[in-house]
Amino acid sequence: MNISDKKFTISIDLMGGDNSPDKTLEGVDLFIKRNKDKKDYFFYLFGNSDLVIDKIKKLKYLKSNYKLVDTKVVVSNDLSPMAALKKGKGSSMWESIQSQISKNTDVTLSAGNTGVLFVMSKMILKMLEGIDRPALAGLWPSDKGMNLVLDLGANVECSEKNLIDFSEMGSALYRSLFPNEEVKVSLLNIGSEELKGTEVLKNAYSKLKTLENMGDFKFVGYVEGNQITSNISNVIVTDGFTGNVALKTAEGVANFLTKNLKKYLTENLFSKLSILFSYFSLKKFRDKLDPRKYNGAIFLGLKGPVVKSHGATDSLGFSYSVELCYKIAKGNLNQKIKKNLENVKNLNEKG
Amino acid sequence: MNISDKKFTISIDLMGGDNSPDKTLEGVDLFIKRNKDKKDYFFYLFGNSDLVIDKIKKLKYLKSNYKLVDTKVVVSNDLSPMAALKKGKGSSMWESIQSQISKNTDVTLSAGNTGVLFVMSKMILKMLEGIDRPALAGLWPSDKGMNLVLDLGANVECSEKNLIDFSEMGSALYRSLFPNEEVKVSLLNIGSEELKGTEVLKNAYSKLKTLENMGDFKFVGYVEGNQITSNISNVIVTDGFTGNVALKTAEGVANFLTKNLKKYLTENLFSKLSILFSYFSLKKFRDKLDPRKYNGAIFLGLKGPVVKSHGATDSLGFSYSVELCYKIAKGNLNQKIKKNLENVKNLNEKG
Repeated sequence: MNISDKKFTISIDLMGGDNSPDKTLEGVDLFIKRNKDKKDYFFYLFGNSDLVIDKIKKLKYLKSNYKLVDTKVVVSNDLSPMAALKKGKGSSMWESIQSQISKNTDVTLSAGNTGVLFVMSKMILKMLEGIDRPALAGLWPSDKGMNLVLDLGANVECSEKNLIDFSEMGSALYRSLFPNEEVKVSLLNIGSEELKGTEVLKNAYSKLKTLENMGDFKFVGYVEGNQITSNISNVIVTDGFTGNVALKTAEGVANFLTKNLKKYLTENLFSKLSILFSYFSLKKFRDKLDPRKYNGAIFLGLKGPVVKSHGATDSLGFSYSVELCYKIAKGNLNQKIKKNLENVKNLNEKG
Repeated sequence: MNISDKKFTISIDLMGGDNSPDKTLEGVDLFIKRNKDKKDYFFYLFGNSDLVIDKIKKLKYLKSNYKLVDTKVVVSNDLSPMAALKKGKGSSMWESIQSQISKNTDVTLSAGNTGVLFVMSKMILKMLEGIDRPALAGLWPSDKGMNLVLDLGANVECSEKNLIDFSEMGSALYRSLFPNEEVKVSLLNIGSEELKGTEVLKNAYSKLKTLENMGDFKFVGYVEGNQITSNISNVIVTDGFTGNVALKTAEGVANFLTKNLKKYLTENLFSKLSILFSYFSLKKFRDKLDPRKYNGAIFLGLKGPVVKSHGATDSLGFSYSVELCYKIAKGNLNQKIKKNLENVKNLNEKG
């Protein structure tokens, strides 16, 4: 195949999450609408054709650039991940992951249950050599764009090795998504002094200082919770417990503030009038911080990349996780991860 | 002394924090202004009289209800807590803590260095019987008022016993501050299911289930980061690492959002005009969420209560930490803590 003919192939589970497959299909359609000028992507869509075909006909942009794979097995949301795994073969989620092997697709996207997606992906794709824990990475709005935070909850407790692996995998992901930016890795801690934090953090700190010279990233040391949105670093590494608490706390505070702002801005006629004058400014504010633009968490450490869309997002939110998949495929994420891990291995062998 | 003559005595380090002693003195003055109707408090003020006396003369409300204790020793901010401890005897911070023993005052307030205040308090006041780790508790705005979160950073790693102690001490504090509310304790976790989290959390969970029947509090189980601002619980218990990250992340997100909101609302003439119309509503919004109203973290587990004001806050912020001290003294915090710890002890002896 000529290099210019190369198409990045994205496998999509159409059936996961709320209001699917309508939401997922409309999301794909919205992505294509925003990327009409590009011809370098192709979709494998997995879902029950009885529920999908009529909907596809009504879409404006999803035309020749896809292949629909009929899947009839349905896995109940009430099952535990392990039970779902047993019954999952032949489901849209299973087949969308499996297609990375059978159809050699570049990346998988699903809005289904996180736990099930996680164990299924691990079982089908297997772990990358040298990695014993996969991580869940997510985008976080920052002063000048977007930062990456990982792990967001895949691992309750992490060793020093895990944190180093997350740094290397996170760097590779950041470089895939933002090829023109310098990668700046930090460890989330409760103070910026070298003496603070757990033993695991202190050991990871000194190891990362050495790895920095391998050229995969710049290591900027510790950051605190209030610096996750700053530009001091763009890859913030932490264990899954802390990362999950930070993410959920941030969501909670953002909701709390916007709820209160809305309450006060609509409390009387004057303040309501003010909204007329500030409509476009408030809209820009909302647009910039719209959580749908950050939709999509990435499982790192598997032999193929898997993206989890928020189950409750709408078609716009889903379209951004499709975009994330496209960037991951184009950025050749797993090649970059392998190269970085090779550097860690070399360092370990040296001493 | 007649019960109606009882005055709650508050020891204040005038010299700690930025812009002190002006800020601290004005803060005390503001507190008295807001509480003119009350006659049941008295201040012991510790500071360099050369720097304090002229300022006091200019204040409107601070008149007969205080005693100034001259302290001349100054401890540099550059010293480590341990070095500061050695040189600290006779300083305003030292004497304000020591006065809980020598003058039998009810509570100490300082805006000085957190680490120094912590080790000094621990050394002078000693730990409560049965407690091996003190905790730092703070107020957190919630949908219907204020919640308490602890530990906010005193202990990087915590055992199951620590989390139980924090629950009992946090309950006592909440009851002191809000005597009419039901106390609802929760553990911060990354999911609400009983199976999630670390072993330490799971063990603390089942122990708290038993303790709930002692009547000190209602145990509502696990909450996630996005529920810290909710009314599901009002005493949220976690280890110091997680608590500190959650607190700082919340601060960071709040700053990030307000900074962006301000930017968009002042970007053009229309949006600027809108501020005229919404001025009072936006002011109410800002007032409700003003971090100065939540100023003051409480060290729990010592034989006397110590409150740490933010070093960078202004006189209004300091006045709210004076108010916190007043409520703690009035609520008889340490008596309540002792009673709660007695309950834990009884339970441990039974089983």
